[in-house]
Amino acid sequence: MATPSMEDYIEQIYLQLEAKGEARVSDVAEALSVLPSSVTKMAQRLHREDYVIYERYRGLELTEKGLKFGEKLVRRHDLLEQFLRIIGVEEHNIYGDVEGIEHHLSWNAMDRITDLVAAMKDDTEFVRKLKERQDF
Amino acid sequence: MATPSMEDYIEQIYLQLEAKGEARVSDVAEALSVLPSSVTKMAQRLHREDYVIYERYRGLELTEKGLKFGEKLVRRHDLLEQFLRIIGVEEHNIYGDVEGIEHHLSWNAMDRITDLVAAMKDDTEFVRKLKERQDF
Ligand SMILES: [Mn+2]
Ligand SMILES: [Mn+2]
Repeated sequence: MATPSMEDYIEQIYLQLEAKGEARVSDVAEALSVLPSSVTKMAQRLHREDYVIYERYRGLELTEKGLKFGEKLVRRHDLLEQFLRIIGVEEHNIYGDVEGIEHHLSWNAMDRITDLVAAMKDDTEFVRKLKERQDF
Repeated sequence: MATPSMEDYIEQIYLQLEAKGEARVSDVAEALSVLPSSVTKMAQRLHREDYVIYERYRGLELTEKGLKFGEKLVRRHDLLEQFLRIIGVEEHNIYGDVEGIEHHLSWNAMDRITDLVAAMKDDTEFVRKLKERQDF
């Protein structure tokens, strides 16, 4: 990805805490393809903005605010994956597409895409007809 | 927007040629909120890559390759606007959302969204039910 944003860091810390119970600077750096020093720098900023608890030589923790926001970011990522999958985007494109667009959509657009995914799940006939178009 | 990409420049040159029959460096610069020197620099690169015909002190022209690509970019922009509009995203968010995501989606995803827009245009009942969700 391009230079990861604040949102990418919070998302990644959240995912690592969820998966392993801890988020090490080195693991976050590797996941985002950046230097550990970039993670440290961002961690200081996120600490000042009350998203992250950061103490030198310790793993990263999320504050209550950080946890809430991380959960929202992960939900958005999942939702966009579901959206692209249900309309038939090829599996190998989905992750890259979501990483590319997730930080650039308004929450208003996300709400509407959330409704759209729910509506498509409820209307299998619509999805069936949608998939038929793909074959032409 | 963030630093405009090559695609933003080609899109903008195409739009200006379409609207006014010419694309002046100063107008492209203004539209993209960059310095004229940035436009000149990109024009040289796009000239080398055979998208743009660029001669000092003259407006920008597109080659056949540039025109084709410009058309494709403008069609993609329009299509994404249609998509967000049909699912009910608020007008004042649409332009910013499209500018944010258009360069980050695979052409595969664009093909599937194209099908989706067509399917929604053909199924007004689906769209009506989708809009109902919004009110809850
Ligand atoms: Mn993500
Ligand atoms: Mn555009």
